[in-house]
Amino acid sequence: MVRVGIIGAGSMAWSMVLIKDLCLTKSLRGSTVAFMDVDKRRLDAVHGLAKRYAKEVKAKLRFEKTTDRKEALKNADFVFNTALAGGHPSYETQRSVGEKHGYYRGIDSVDHNMVSDYPTIGGYNQLRLALEIARDMEDLCPDAWLIQTANPLFEICNLLTRQTKLKVIGLCHGHFGYRKVVKTLGLNAKHVKAESIGFNHCIWMTTFKHNSESAYPLLDEWVKTKAHKYWKNWNPKYYEADMSPAAVDMYRRFGLFPIGDTPRSGGWKYHADLATKKRWYGPLGGFDSEIGWGKYQADLKKQCGKMLKLHDDPSLSVTREFPPVKSGEQHIPVVDAIANDQETMFQVNVPNNGAVDDIPDDVVVEVPALVSRNGVRRLSVGRLPKRLMLYAIVPRMLRMEWALEAFLEGNREKLIEWLLNDPRTKSAKQAEDTVREILKLPFNKQMAAHYS
Amino acid sequence: MVRVGIIGAGSMAWSMVLIKDLCLTKSLRGSTVAFMDVDKRRLDAVHGLAKRYAKEVKAKLRFEKTTDRKEALKNADFVFNTALAGGHPSYETQRSVGEKHGYYRGIDSVDHNMVSDYPTIGGYNQLRLALEIARDMEDLCPDAWLIQTANPLFEICNLLTRQTKLKVIGLCHGHFGYRKVVKTLGLNAKHVKAESIGFNHCIWMTTFKHNSESAYPLLDEWVKTKAHKYWKNWNPKYYEADMSPAAVDMYRRFGLFPIGDTPRSGGWKYHADLATKKRWYGPLGGFDSEIGWGKYQADLKKQCGKMLKLHDDPSLSVTREFPPVKSGEQHIPVVDAIANDQETMFQVNVPNNGAVDDIPDDVVVEVPALVSRNGVRRLSVGRLPKRLMLYAIVPRMLRMEWALEAFLEGNREKLIEWLLNDPRTKSAKQAEDTVREILKLPFNKQMAAHYS
Repeated sequence: MVRVGIIGAGSMAWSMVLIKDLCLTKSLRGSTVAFMDVDKRRLDAVHGLAKRYAKEVKAKLRFEKTTDRKEALKNADFVFNTALAGGHPSYETQRSVGEKHGYYRGIDSVDHNMVSDYPTIGGYNQLRLALEIARDMEDLCPDAWLIQTANPLFEICNLLTRQTKLKVIGLCHGHFGYRKVVKTLGLNAKHVKAESIGFNHCIWMTTFKHNSESAYPLLDEWVKTKAHKYWKNWNPKYYEADMSPAAVDMYRRFGLFPIGDTPRSGGWKYHADLATKKRWYGPLGGFDSEIGWGKYQADLKKQCGKMLKLHDDPSLSVTREFPPVKSGEQHIPVVDAIANDQETMFQVNVPNNGAVDDIPDDVVVEVPALVSRNGVRRLSVGRLPKRLMLYAIVPRMLRMEWALEAFLEGNREKLIEWLLNDPRTKSAKQAEDTVREILKLPFNKQMAAHYS
Repeated sequence: MVRVGIIGAGSMAWSMVLIKDLCLTKSLRGSTVAFMDVDKRRLDAVHGLAKRYAKEVKAKLRFEKTTDRKEALKNADFVFNTALAGGHPSYETQRSVGEKHGYYRGIDSVDHNMVSDYPTIGGYNQLRLALEIARDMEDLCPDAWLIQTANPLFEICNLLTRQTKLKVIGLCHGHFGYRKVVKTLGLNAKHVKAESIGFNHCIWMTTFKHNSESAYPLLDEWVKTKAHKYWKNWNPKYYEADMSPAAVDMYRRFGLFPIGDTPRSGGWKYHADLATKKRWYGPLGGFDSEIGWGKYQADLKKQCGKMLKLHDDPSLSVTREFPPVKSGEQHIPVVDAIANDQETMFQVNVPNNGAVDDIPDDVVVEVPALVSRNGVRRLSVGRLPKRLMLYAIVPRMLRMEWALEAFLEGNREKLIEWLLNDPRTKSAKQAEDTVREILKLPFNKQMAAHYS
């Protein structure tokens, strides 16, 4: 029996995953969930659907709703932060300002972080919101676990673990992407052991075994003999980058196979323009092209509409729309492992503290770890290949440090400095003009004051 | 009484500095110098001039000459490596190939290393030569000190300290550049204490005191009230970047004043093209523009011609051309400090081993240290400002690691990877074509075999 606060509960599809898994986890029955969002309509819908879902599957759970963050946090045992400050539209507006000044897909699209809703240097509002939530937690539920879900997960987890005393775990599902590799190679998943290590959205398959033997030779064989055919009439969904030419090229360049959201990034080699993206990610240009991202945004909207409709018609069955099968996501199982002290292995984002060699202790890594009431027990995973460290891990880490320093220190020069290091910057003036216009956006008022 | 081997003695102006200082250092009288170069004409000239110089100043020293490296190294106590493999012409040819493919000033001109004869990724021949000399030393004079003078000093010192067991000290004179700052501010150098820390060609004035008080406020005042006037009709020599607008802008961006060769680099902000270089370094566009570099090359040639002429006419006085006043360079004083066990403070390039916080132990830093027969005693210099670490030190360090990994591991992909991280690269094809053509240059045959 725990009390869970969900901040940003209006991201409806995601809330339904949490609700469903909670309803289907018997050991958490009797718990209370407090939904919080600033969007009242969506909040009502999530709350209503949660109640109906619990009733349909006969799960005894209490649901509260509030637009007051503090109310949702008070006395919480677990807090999920799934909130995107300002929602997608403001980031799309900000992206378009970047594009106007020559930054295709916006100023936050950079080497090893091309994911379109993962704002770092431009994510002031999002970082500030995350820090404000954490500060409220320090007041209202200092012993609670913060399960960070919203992006930029890497930057936010680093920010919160350094700036607060909270217990923070970042969760993402990208590491499950190894299953796509397994499936494509035609292996039986039951006989496969895989581990992927690195930073969120920048994880690399350090262990890939089939029947206790390295399965990398099987992957090499596939690349050599089957990949070409596989890609011939390839027409992937926008979110399918797992076995893309980009993923295989990144494997060749960096020495380990990139997993989950990792192959969405890489470098400008794959992302210079739409034509380039299409060459590496298929006809849609991948998740983060204007086409792929447009489809994703449309899907989100459609899903939201469907759920609002479901809410409006109490005669419909919610379980019919969301069958009572566990999602496979780690979020509720992590709560269960901690609340009921069932030590379980999860893929978590936590400060390194020696888990990965040659990465500072205070940098958050994404690694497998054992989680229980006592907290997170890291497994020592050794050293990543030098090539990967030099060309992916350290550059990505440096970007995080740049973004955090800018956020913590203020000063407009930091934003300009970021852009001076961007290969798309042709002149100091371009960088300055871009920053000036972004800081003039109406939803960036506080950001402008901070970076004065 | 020591035995000194000078490899690359044909860099005549530089050899004369060593000869002069050696002749003027009484405590080293009786020593032997073995000059080695592959250019016999220059070798003869240096040898002849050295003998005449010693005679004119009545210094008892022995001079040998050889085109056989091993002969010069055998039983040496000190070895100076001043050799540039292939000489300047081959690097100019290589630069022009880079320029043809869109890399202005060549593929080795990059953020924080724009110095035109400091080849790193393209410096295979130079790195190989340095390593070969070191390997010969391990055979022929394993206890000798290697005083590394030739560039890329940062990369070579890292390479040799990691790959050999030799005692290596890298020396450069850039740190004396603080004197230009002192002079421009109109301060009395006697009352000034300055220290500059970092990597070779990337050093930053961490200490700047005048009469025991910080002199940075005086510098700030100069920037605020006098710089504009100073730059108004500014017409600096090509090598004068010390008080350039670029230097001041780097100070503003990174938080400490850049010293010596440091302001020659910075980022592309100052180097995008000739017009940009002129804006930041004056009408010649600085040392590393096509104009400035051309002037430097012409000066080198002129100086060489003058010395060959001096050599050809035994009736001329050598001391008249090179007055018997110590150069102020550190090279012979370092030999003296070690040979005669006179512990003295020098600015050296040695593995960090804890001198500068947050830089790995095995990365060579440029720091003040005490040198004596017992070796190098580092002074703990603490932490560099975070902004400087994030935007200059770590990026420069990463480039060194990239270059060394490529050199040590081979594989053409590494060279392409370097270029994929270059903002001037517009496509993977551009990078591949550039590497292919560079590897086809006649003097790069071994390089091509290595990067097959």
